[in-house]
Amino acid sequence: MTATRFDILGIGNAIVDVVAPVPDAFLERHAMAKGAMTLIDTATADRLYADMPPAQESSGGSAANTCAVAAGLGARVAYLGLVADDQLGRVFRHDITAAGVTYPTAPATAGAPTARCLIMVTPDGQRSMNTYLGACVDFSPDQLDLDAVRAASVTYLEGYLFDPPAAQAAFRAAAAAAHEAGRQVALSLSDAFCVHRHHAAFRDLVAGHVDILFANEDEILALYGVSDFDTAATQARQDVALAALTRSSRGSTIVHGQDTIQVAAEPTTLVDSTGAGDAYAAGFLAALTTGRPLAQCGRLGSIAAAEVISHYGARPLRDLSRELAAV
Amino acid sequence: MTATRFDILGIGNAIVDVVAPVPDAFLERHAMAKGAMTLIDTATADRLYADMPPAQESSGGSAANTCAVAAGLGARVAYLGLVADDQLGRVFRHDITAAGVTYPTAPATAGAPTARCLIMVTPDGQRSMNTYLGACVDFSPDQLDLDAVRAASVTYLEGYLFDPPAAQAAFRAAAAAAHEAGRQVALSLSDAFCVHRHHAAFRDLVAGHVDILFANEDEILALYGVSDFDTAATQARQDVALAALTRSSRGSTIVHGQDTIQVAAEPTTLVDSTGAGDAYAAGFLAALTTGRPLAQCGRLGSIAAAEVISHYGARPLRDLSRELAAV
Repeated sequence: MTATRFDILGIGNAIVDVVAPVPDAFLERHAMAKGAMTLIDTATADRLYADMPPAQESSGGSAANTCAVAAGLGARVAYLGLVADDQLGRVFRHDITAAGVTYPTAPATAGAPTARCLIMVTPDGQRSMNTYLGACVDFSPDQLDLDAVRAASVTYLEGYLFDPPAAQAAFRAAAAAAHEAGRQVALSLSDAFCVHRHHAAFRDLVAGHVDILFANEDEILALYGVSDFDTAATQARQDVALAALTRSSRGSTIVHGQDTIQVAAEPTTLVDSTGAGDAYAAGFLAALTTGRPLAQCGRLGSIAAAEVISHYGARPLRDLSRELAAV
Repeated sequence: MTATRFDILGIGNAIVDVVAPVPDAFLERHAMAKGAMTLIDTATADRLYADMPPAQESSGGSAANTCAVAAGLGARVAYLGLVADDQLGRVFRHDITAAGVTYPTAPATAGAPTARCLIMVTPDGQRSMNTYLGACVDFSPDQLDLDAVRAASVTYLEGYLFDPPAAQAAFRAAAAAAHEAGRQVALSLSDAFCVHRHHAAFRDLVAGHVDILFANEDEILALYGVSDFDTAATQARQDVALAALTRSSRGSTIVHGQDTIQVAAEPTTLVDSTGAGDAYAAGFLAALTTGRPLAQCGRLGSIAAAEVISHYGARPLRDLSRELAAV
């Protein structure tokens, strides 16, 4: 096995977030499921944007957020995801590169514009996301940089990448290449609705190709079709070598072989929950790939999540470079 | 004199802000004047952006910020300013329209892209701005909607609009049309460096064409070439019917004929001072055009300024619609 160049290689939907605060009535008016991610087409995106309050734009995408946070913590990180050759695509490229992430994917010069996610943040801090996939729809095995996959300790896949039609094949090819190179594959389930949309494919992937699973409570219940967290955790224990299951303010539960580790949430003021799970995975993997015990992995995940939910936007505003050394 | 359709018509540079936190060393490395606005060309914009940390984008532009805040306070507001027909131009149009501002200016279909301002926020909350004027450079009398000018109680001009080559003529034409229709003209000096760049033109405009002047301490000193605030205020008293002079945490001084009114700053936690002066002018004019006494105008200015400096970005995140009724 050759030396790694990256601790983490993320693969996901490259998206610019458009974030605005809204009252709960806005969600009702647009029949939006609070806390979920809904896929929308161009016409719906235009209609929804027209009704949205003034917004702020920042680079997003679940795995991209994870990569940006992990690089901020000091991990060696690369990212694969497709933007268009347009203004928002250049914003995305700037931000992830400036965060210290290697980003080799060339922009698409034809086709749809860079993907956008219209995010409504209600006064309770919950985010309801509406994604226009745009250029992401064309992510395919052509965009897979297999050298980067083979050179990364962990290839981290976001569940949302199951939505673009051409991407599932890339997903499986990446997992196969990682394992052939003796590396590990991590998966984030991303969203309970996403799990429902691709249920059989997710079950197959988790049981057969995933070493490290990230999920929140809704997602892990959706994956196993059960209503009890402990039952779901028991199933995860059988399916994967390591699972980190997040439970919002109740912290996280790490299952690994016969071990179960409870990690407390980090106290903070919730402003915008966007990116909480992404940041948790970043902290967890940054600690794991530098050889920390699992309890410290969970603790660094909690610290990173607390930072991003304390303000609007899914990427950290605070310098996190000392946090990895401190846990 | 016919009835007004607008309380405030703002005219200025239509700009998308790109905001990032930086250490003081970043300003030193790029020889940036802290707190000032510097005009940059495409090459410098590209070089600076490449060195900037991950950023957040939001609609900006000094007069546009004022318009958005004033509309949020309940005033009837229109705005003129030029964007390109591109993604950032559509973001700008969405945000100002969603803020409740009438925005009749058609986008430029040829020429430079939508203007951007690269804003570095240092840990002391000061913002240092670097503006690539882009499409703004082509703002000219062609973009002047004179019907809107005539229909507005106050036409509010931002000093920065003196920078684009074709805009000064539009500025003077707007002031003339407003006065012919029996309306008032307000001017914000915007920036001490901007005042220095166009010193004679500003002196001429203020003395001959402006009814209501907004300036901070540095700007009013620069306008009159003096080092003492009281001397500058005395000169402003002679030049204009009404001046509102802001002094950061020391509040503001309003001079009107023989009257001088001191207004305290509203207590808040300074995060990012971007837009403080813009928001002050918004509160002041929203109160003034609805017939409030000058002390209340200043107080609403302070309240609006306190809101926008308490977070990143120059436009309010909090619903301000009850503030006008409350003063």
